[in-house]
Amino acid sequence: MKTSNHIVIMAGGIGSRFWPISTSDCPKQFIDVLGCGKSLLQLTLERFGNMFPKENVWIVTSAAYADMVMEQLPDVPKENILLEPCRRNTAPCIAYAAWKIKKKDPNANMVVTPSDHFVQDVTEFRRVIESSLKFVSDSDAILTLGIKPTRPETGYGYIEAVLGTSSLANKEVYRVDSFKEKPDIDVAKAYIARNNFYWNSGIFIWNVQTIVNAFRVYQSPIANIFESILPVMYTEQEQSVIDEKFPDCRNISVDYAILERAEEVFVFPVDFGWSDLGTWMSLYDRSPRDLNGNSMIGCNVEFSDSHNCIVHAKENKRIVLIGINDCIVAEHDGNLLVCKMSEEGRIKEFTDK
Amino acid sequence: MKTSNHIVIMAGGIGSRFWPISTSDCPKQFIDVLGCGKSLLQLTLERFGNMFPKENVWIVTSAAYADMVMEQLPDVPKENILLEPCRRNTAPCIAYAAWKIKKKDPNANMVVTPSDHFVQDVTEFRRVIESSLKFVSDSDAILTLGIKPTRPETGYGYIEAVLGTSSLANKEVYRVDSFKEKPDIDVAKAYIARNNFYWNSGIFIWNVQTIVNAFRVYQSPIANIFESILPVMYTEQEQSVIDEKFPDCRNISVDYAILERAEEVFVFPVDFGWSDLGTWMSLYDRSPRDLNGNSMIGCNVEFSDSHNCIVHAKENKRIVLIGINDCIVAEHDGNLLVCKMSEEGRIKEFTDK
Repeated sequence: MKTSNHIVIMAGGIGSRFWPISTSDCPKQFIDVLGCGKSLLQLTLERFGNMFPKENVWIVTSAAYADMVMEQLPDVPKENILLEPCRRNTAPCIAYAAWKIKKKDPNANMVVTPSDHFVQDVTEFRRVIESSLKFVSDSDAILTLGIKPTRPETGYGYIEAVLGTSSLANKEVYRVDSFKEKPDIDVAKAYIARNNFYWNSGIFIWNVQTIVNAFRVYQSPIANIFESILPVMYTEQEQSVIDEKFPDCRNISVDYAILERAEEVFVFPVDFGWSDLGTWMSLYDRSPRDLNGNSMIGCNVEFSDSHNCIVHAKENKRIVLIGINDCIVAEHDGNLLVCKMSEEGRIKEFTDK
Repeated sequence: MKTSNHIVIMAGGIGSRFWPISTSDCPKQFIDVLGCGKSLLQLTLERFGNMFPKENVWIVTSAAYADMVMEQLPDVPKENILLEPCRRNTAPCIAYAAWKIKKKDPNANMVVTPSDHFVQDVTEFRRVIESSLKFVSDSDAILTLGIKPTRPETGYGYIEAVLGTSSLANKEVYRVDSFKEKPDIDVAKAYIARNNFYWNSGIFIWNVQTIVNAFRVYQSPIANIFESILPVMYTEQEQSVIDEKFPDCRNISVDYAILERAEEVFVFPVDFGWSDLGTWMSLYDRSPRDLNGNSMIGCNVEFSDSHNCIVHAKENKRIVLIGINDCIVAEHDGNLLVCKMSEEGRIKEFTDK
């Protein structure tokens, strides 16, 4: 029997570090952050090309965002949009999708991905995903993609691989030694000085049986909740039962809940030009710039004696910067931010205040 | 016979240094630049209190601005709004008003004022105007208000008074020795080191016979044009004849055309807290500021580690500045400016481009 492949896109985040472009009413994944005419959510699905039939695409999001998902991804069946009644981090989100898929397709493989990241080399990305799906369909491995680090970034978690332990089934895949929390700068420098530390991308690949079993072993309260919901899945009662029981799930990431505890965890080191677009600086790094280092997204800015600025303001008729250096200028829906690039860590203090 | 007093407000300027708040579609004088709920034009008329009956108030402006004037000054009779078909600087503008008033009221006194300046001490302003009107009604003097300078400003013209020559009729008024063009900084410092140099305010007071005669002597081509228009003034033909003949007027300021040439020119040194609001810096100087030197006009800005900024953005819901110093942030009608205060001289390069 040929196993079928499913993709689960997690689209419930609120993107608080990208105010005012991203707001809780319309977070980053629904926004054309890159100024290319498509939202990050749309780009996320496009990235997979024709690897998945549309009925195997699942979006997990908040009820408040259901209309935006349907509008932006009209080809995804409405019943494939899973609505969380509240935010409980990634473990309950993934469990919901896993039980749902398993009921329909008990031997399915799943790719789980955030909805708001950037990938430059889509061809390489697809090769990695296909190779990963093949790997997990032949094993009970939990596989995560690890980004080869390019700088001592303190904003990401790291994955330590056991080199020399590549799987027989896939020479590119290594056993994971441990997951590391966001390090300070000295620790980050030590990590990247070695060649077996990777950024945790939040992209996971596994067979649905593997992840469901892992939940049963390591997060039995969550597993029990979804076992109890299973009978009503694909019925008219599903949403009301989810609304009732989902809030009882523990608020925990899948990294903490499962990956750090499970045995058969592997990492696929990849290098396809990735960014979580978690900060304005990371967007600036990924954006085309003029000779003075200025980047404009979705707008036409006149720069005079200005350098190394990023301007994101799609609704403005005209923008002029004179004598401005190293600044973020962003406007959306009547909200205006002018921020020194080095101070962007403070932006989240002002989000949806 | 009691002479009557008239006020002529010149409201045809385009305020190019205040982009994007001021545009040629809606220049500075029609904008609530100070964030007080009233335009500079409205404040200009209010400044005179009840000194003039409304039928003695005259607005000279461009045809394009007629509707805005009527909307902002509904009490001024529509027929008192004089429409220039093109911009010809202040001399033709003043001549038009002078001939018009003279036909109706041959012995009138006139106060001529720009429409986009700021005056702090309105009580002192009114005292000066009343004293000035009394002075010119008893003489054939051309009187200009000279602002006592507070700094070596290079953006204004200066008036050199002959001290010890105060008029017998008004001890506060001095004969003018010469008008000086905008000086460089060293010359400006030399001017203010003496005590007989004043900023040229552009506010003039004279009897209508005096100014009409001065035009006849010193600017006979302009005088001839308005003599030829005189028969149709206050008739239905007036506007079409103005539209035909006004463009033939020389493009010249009243300072060059008359004041620098006439004999009986006096200056009234005044100190009522004046600014021409000609630059963002001058507006910043006149605006209330918080402890960090930040000024917000028409908006509520959240400042974080930001200092000495001026923000003028009435249409925004929310504005956040983080780590920004010495900047102008201004938004109007979809146009956004972020400009280092020291570079504001470049703003006019971007006006209505």
